[in-house]
Amino acid sequence: MQNVVKIGVAGLGTVGAGTVKLLSEHRDNLADRSGSPMIVTAVSARDRTRDRGFSTEGITWYEDARDLATDKNVDVVVETIGGSDGIAYDVCKAALENGKHVVTANKALIALHGVELARIADAHNVTIAYEAAVAGGIPVIKALREGLAGNAISRVTGILNGTCNYILTTMREQGRDFADVLAEAQKLGYAEADPTFDVDGIDAAHKLAILTSLAFGVEVDFDAIAVEGIRSVSALDIQLAEELGYRIKLLAIAKQTPEGIEQRVSPVLVDRSTQISKVEGVFNAVVLEGDYVGPVVLQGRGAGERPTASAVVADLVDIAAGRNAPVFGVPADRLKKNVRASLEKHVGPYYLRLMVWDRPGVMAEVTATLAKHGVSMASMIQHGRAETEGGVVPVVFVTHETSEAAMSGALSDISAFESNSQPPVLMRIEGFTS
Amino acid sequence: MQNVVKIGVAGLGTVGAGTVKLLSEHRDNLADRSGSPMIVTAVSARDRTRDRGFSTEGITWYEDARDLATDKNVDVVVETIGGSDGIAYDVCKAALENGKHVVTANKALIALHGVELARIADAHNVTIAYEAAVAGGIPVIKALREGLAGNAISRVTGILNGTCNYILTTMREQGRDFADVLAEAQKLGYAEADPTFDVDGIDAAHKLAILTSLAFGVEVDFDAIAVEGIRSVSALDIQLAEELGYRIKLLAIAKQTPEGIEQRVSPVLVDRSTQISKVEGVFNAVVLEGDYVGPVVLQGRGAGERPTASAVVADLVDIAAGRNAPVFGVPADRLKKNVRASLEKHVGPYYLRLMVWDRPGVMAEVTATLAKHGVSMASMIQHGRAETEGGVVPVVFVTHETSEAAMSGALSDISAFESNSQPPVLMRIEGFTS
Repeated sequence: MQNVVKIGVAGLGTVGAGTVKLLSEHRDNLADRSGSPMIVTAVSARDRTRDRGFSTEGITWYEDARDLATDKNVDVVVETIGGSDGIAYDVCKAALENGKHVVTANKALIALHGVELARIADAHNVTIAYEAAVAGGIPVIKALREGLAGNAISRVTGILNGTCNYILTTMREQGRDFADVLAEAQKLGYAEADPTFDVDGIDAAHKLAILTSLAFGVEVDFDAIAVEGIRSVSALDIQLAEELGYRIKLLAIAKQTPEGIEQRVSPVLVDRSTQISKVEGVFNAVVLEGDYVGPVVLQGRGAGERPTASAVVADLVDIAAGRNAPVFGVPADRLKKNVRASLEKHVGPYYLRLMVWDRPGVMAEVTATLAKHGVSMASMIQHGRAETEGGVVPVVFVTHETSEAAMSGALSDISAFESNSQPPVLMRIEGFTS
Repeated sequence: MQNVVKIGVAGLGTVGAGTVKLLSEHRDNLADRSGSPMIVTAVSARDRTRDRGFSTEGITWYEDARDLATDKNVDVVVETIGGSDGIAYDVCKAALENGKHVVTANKALIALHGVELARIADAHNVTIAYEAAVAGGIPVIKALREGLAGNAISRVTGILNGTCNYILTTMREQGRDFADVLAEAQKLGYAEADPTFDVDGIDAAHKLAILTSLAFGVEVDFDAIAVEGIRSVSALDIQLAEELGYRIKLLAIAKQTPEGIEQRVSPVLVDRSTQISKVEGVFNAVVLEGDYVGPVVLQGRGAGERPTASAVVADLVDIAAGRNAPVFGVPADRLKKNVRASLEKHVGPYYLRLMVWDRPGVMAEVTATLAKHGVSMASMIQHGRAETEGGVVPVVFVTHETSEAAMSGALSDISAFESNSQPPVLMRIEGFTS
């Protein structure tokens, strides 16, 4: 059954062009693996004259990507335009409605419109695949949807944004501050000119929303995620965390709790003996915890032309081979509504760092307040006055397991103390068994 | 299409019983994920009276597992008997010939008879799936076969035997010798009464043979693997390696070389900054390196009732959902013959440790011999006489990239020196980019 699979590529930026190149470079091997030769029959991009490293001879060129959705000579549309709405959304929706499969690298689209698109896909007996949308070339979507299908997942944790991980790694290794390292990352091309989506945690949250749906069989619920980026992480906190045996990572976390699913993106402290703490630079990693399999860690390059093309083509091979899985692991009409767990009910250890005027009574005041809120301490660091200027010293508390509500209450009281030279910093500590 | 998928389980040991339990415990979710309810209709095991933690009421019981292959009320046979030949082989072959899918955790069977079974499977339009055969619950078969299908793989490296990794980890952490730690591991149930398959590297080699076929599209070629276990690894070498910034791991490695595929299992030194060096205890890990994706690391529990059942059930879900992939990624008749790369042509750095009588001229003799064979040195450790008894001292050389042939020549000459108080130890150093 050597049916040729005809592919239309919407957008010829990094990912689109990389995909076309990969399909051409590994054509014979891909045909062996999928059972069907795959050829690019149509493309769409703004600038027709740009050299993208491959010939477009014999390929239909559309000004408007939406035309790919109705081209009878296209079986699968690869969408690499990006953005949660606009053309990307239009192309994907129309392609599915016209009975074409869709492969996309668009996390915002799936995070915000995934369930709607899955319903349309199910109704037309096609699929929308998005391995490339999360963690680049790491086959984490496939691992969750198929590889760990036998498990009840208790928690999904990820380093899902390479830009943030690169910045945090560099801040730690070189003792430099956020703004400084961000500027350098922008110069090196590791961060966008407008870094908001990355450094404010939104990109990681888009990806987390998708993983949560797959892991727990619930509808994607992006708005449920408590999102905090890395702008407020200081070189000082990174260094103090190290002293205590921790590393600061921007983690995206979805956890099954008795109340519902807790979803959050924020800088957290992780023990330096854990695998995820050792994932450095632009690498991504995901920890999947299942009731049968235990913890599984997947690590690799989370972005870039070639890793992302690898993921797009894996989806294309599945489609060409007729290996269709439901978009979120189960049919869209079997997805449960997400039940949100309030973050106030979160229980775990915390890192609290104050910067205080070093005078008698300060410690007594703080510890008494923590005790009043039922927060018990596991460890503390106070450095001597000599290390800082003007009599201001950092004081760090690591707590035992505490509820977020109790911790917020204590923080609110402590923030009001006149002894603070700057607002206190509070971060969660996330535990791992491996 | 709620067709019930009827499963026959051959063997009710750890893996078989775990599979039956998982299928029952997650029945509803599995039906959602696969689109078809899966039920166990028949089992086979020696002792019918043993309590295995589940009821066999309404399930056909066979004394002879081979009868499962002809039971019309069985669609898929799960083989968990083990062993490369005998009943396991008979059941799997007969089941495929009778048009039944097979799921197995049997690495020896696939490593030795995989191609023959894949041909039979292809001819009868069924599959034999074996996710559980390699690295337990880690979905590495799926990652190689599907997730990285778009890549030309350059190297596959794995910590594939949890027993060996546990022993090496414990030896290092506690400074103890092999025999001592093995005895303890046997007591704790981490090692078998007859540990040969594990500690001599055979189990890891079985798994490597399978990964090699999947990664490079070649016929399984177990006999091509140079296999060396961990019996000769000493606490001293572990400690000296640490001093030099390395950790000793039993790695299974398959590498594409210009000459062909190099396959080997042996203790090697890996830089302590790499991810794989940090995989400790009973955990398994695999590093897959593709031309598009770069390095991908997968880590998790490589054995045990529950992780292995997780993998078996993932295969069952794929089969129930109609997601069939060719047994080794491409149809059996498209697998290439394996071209073996001679290990003599291996090029890389080496660790050479001597134990010599500390007298004038020894170092000059050794370094001159290395130079004579064209081996250039990267670093060296010689400890003072005070540290050892009787004037015997360890001397360690780390070489730059050298061919195995040159190194063997040098080793042969050096071994003849009268200054040796025991035979020299030579190990390869394996490099990783992450």
